[in-house]
Amino acid sequence: MPDLQVIELGRRAKAASRILATATTEQKNDALLAAAALLGERRSGLLAANHDDLRAAEADGLEPGPLDRLRLTGSRLESMIEGLQTVAALADPIGEVLDGWRRPNGLVIERGRVPLGVVCIIYENRPNVTSDAFGLCLKAGNAALLRGSGSALRSNRAIAAVLRAACEHAGLPADCLVFVDDPSHDTAKQVMRLTEYIDCLIPRGGPALIQSVRDHATVPVIIDGDGNCHVYVDAAADLEEALRIVVNAKTQRTSVCNAAESLVVHQSVADHFVPIVANALVEHGVELVGDAAARRLSAQIQPAAAGDFGREFLSLKMSVAVVPDLDAAIEHVNLYGTGHTEAILTRDLAAARRFAREVDAAAIVVNASTRFTDGAEFGFGAEIGISTQKLHARGPMGLRELTTYKYTLWGEGQVKGS
Amino acid sequence: MPDLQVIELGRRAKAASRILATATTEQKNDALLAAAALLGERRSGLLAANHDDLRAAEADGLEPGPLDRLRLTGSRLESMIEGLQTVAALADPIGEVLDGWRRPNGLVIERGRVPLGVVCIIYENRPNVTSDAFGLCLKAGNAALLRGSGSALRSNRAIAAVLRAACEHAGLPADCLVFVDDPSHDTAKQVMRLTEYIDCLIPRGGPALIQSVRDHATVPVIIDGDGNCHVYVDAAADLEEALRIVVNAKTQRTSVCNAAESLVVHQSVADHFVPIVANALVEHGVELVGDAAARRLSAQIQPAAAGDFGREFLSLKMSVAVVPDLDAAIEHVNLYGTGHTEAILTRDLAAARRFAREVDAAAIVVNASTRFTDGAEFGFGAEIGISTQKLHARGPMGLRELTTYKYTLWGEGQVKGS
Repeated sequence: MPDLQVIELGRRAKAASRILATATTEQKNDALLAAAALLGERRSGLLAANHDDLRAAEADGLEPGPLDRLRLTGSRLESMIEGLQTVAALADPIGEVLDGWRRPNGLVIERGRVPLGVVCIIYENRPNVTSDAFGLCLKAGNAALLRGSGSALRSNRAIAAVLRAACEHAGLPADCLVFVDDPSHDTAKQVMRLTEYIDCLIPRGGPALIQSVRDHATVPVIIDGDGNCHVYVDAAADLEEALRIVVNAKTQRTSVCNAAESLVVHQSVADHFVPIVANALVEHGVELVGDAAARRLSAQIQPAAAGDFGREFLSLKMSVAVVPDLDAAIEHVNLYGTGHTEAILTRDLAAARRFAREVDAAAIVVNASTRFTDGAEFGFGAEIGISTQKLHARGPMGLRELTTYKYTLWGEGQVKGS
Repeated sequence: MPDLQVIELGRRAKAASRILATATTEQKNDALLAAAALLGERRSGLLAANHDDLRAAEADGLEPGPLDRLRLTGSRLESMIEGLQTVAALADPIGEVLDGWRRPNGLVIERGRVPLGVVCIIYENRPNVTSDAFGLCLKAGNAALLRGSGSALRSNRAIAAVLRAACEHAGLPADCLVFVDDPSHDTAKQVMRLTEYIDCLIPRGGPALIQSVRDHATVPVIIDGDGNCHVYVDAAADLEEALRIVVNAKTQRTSVCNAAESLVVHQSVADHFVPIVANALVEHGVELVGDAAARRLSAQIQPAAAGDFGREFLSLKMSVAVVPDLDAAIEHVNLYGTGHTEAILTRDLAAARRFAREVDAAAIVVNASTRFTDGAEFGFGAEIGISTQKLHARGPMGLRELTTYKYTLWGEGQVKGS
């Protein structure tokens, strides 16, 4: 049973969500644009709060990577502002009638899109998530219950205060954003158990956070998990195109979940392709590890350690496997993949269709880079994360994925017979 | 970490789900119809196994209610057979293209309906769930991992053996149904943690089971929860029609989640309506409890005990409240409701639309009985349960709700720019 103070946070968010659920598109856009304007106006205060966070984090010995993610710069603040303006310009998903039908007894059943209610985001380091998550939640009619990490507490608190003020400015409750102003792990665990108040929890962070959510959450969860993405180069691949795509998928940006981590090559083209692609990847600074068959074809490939084929490197490192046929490729990808994005490069339509059907992942890419699994690339305008689970949402999550539906039954006095 | 034997159950179901995901409609229907035929052929063996369960349960002192739910009769077996035939006749949801679009860079993004993978059902007493759940899961292309209660072990084991044989008969893996042949609570808790193998867990049972799932499950869950359903009689209700609907919603069948548990009456019609409806309900054997305002209007209404307005009675008992206006009615329903089904009876269109929009529930019923929130009444043909959560599925769940989607990106060599 969560503490009374934690329950109170949930209660406040739920109460605001009732009002927000019936807010007009104009009210929601007013709040988003007011938030964008106010972030600009209060720029110096926000940067000062972030400066304090950075100083404390440095004193605590935070590593350069997380420290960079914690940093708020003028241009990052500008991105947050533009993000809110972009979301204001997106179509309102709420109120859409998804389908409907008439039953033989005359009842008309209508299914309409409605907000989830209270969406909780637990996130790490990056203070921009505070405004990005708020913006998407608000536009989809959801109150946001936000819990950031301790290192970003001053930044998040300052940003949340601005966003709450913007809601009030637009005539909406400040509690459309409830900020958990206590970064302890114990409080986070209690938040994850607010089943009466939270309709959906989306953790945004590393494996330790995901595991904690799996272990402690009793509220419905959408997991934004690892991407151990494969590129399979088929017997019928255009090998010049394949070379460009593999290099792009691996090296264009390495720290993201849709970067390729593993290369799988059909043996009939491996003799020719593996040495070429290995050279190109090594030229781009990539460290290669592979199975025995791959290593026989290129001295650039080191032996893969145990677990390497299942690992999301998130760095300039890639595993390489040679497979005898399409069946083995599909089996390999289904065994080691994490259900994120898997690509096949081939001119063989039947092979492409089999791979698309039999590989189990949120996104199957045919003859393009894995890097396209992304809300912006999908045209969603904004993204709250990329789901690697199958329940509710799969792949990039935009506004639509932050909604649910409700049935309305229009009757004329119908009662149920025996 | 689950035991190796439990992991092996998940592994078997997952392996079968890969094959089932690409099975043809014909293969799936063959398996369903073979299962229906085989249940008929092995009728005497199934009834004998159930007889042993019943004898053991009686010796253990199982109560008459659960004992009745455990009982397999000729007609109940016939219903199971008809259920499988019905599901075979339903349209196959798999393969539907939900939407798709072309991006400015030429990528074509397609979203198609696919199976969830492995669906786990944990259920109590009723052995018919074994075949009902199997049928829906199989038609939607999912392997079913089924765990029934200890009291029904012999019945469920015998039914599962028949269904598995039918899968093999149709050329599908027997493991399209994996039966957990160990009814211990510890094993159930381990099953709930098979995150590598289970894509969706649906508990079917009472509050203790739901609580155990909330506390122990790490796999994605759909909660089929309580229905504390209200009927609100508005100032503008047709009171003759209201009388018929209230009596039907409360008394037509009391043990089901879509039966009404609470009556809320607008004060402007309460003087006239409460005495009449109270008499009619009492004539139908209903015990009434209410607030002070309701009790002033009918001596048939006893004082409500603490918690009565939040209680799902599932019996001939009903709570009654009088409210000053529509706002208070909506607030009352949102406070005590469980997000299942809430009805308004009114001739006032604006009141109906406000109630439909502002009350937070899977189904809002206007001028009809709450008893219509049901897969059969919705025209789904069959139902795996009624979701009271908002993630993934809400309200009655048919075949469509046992599926997810997958993106396929069709490219022509696209790589991501900087």
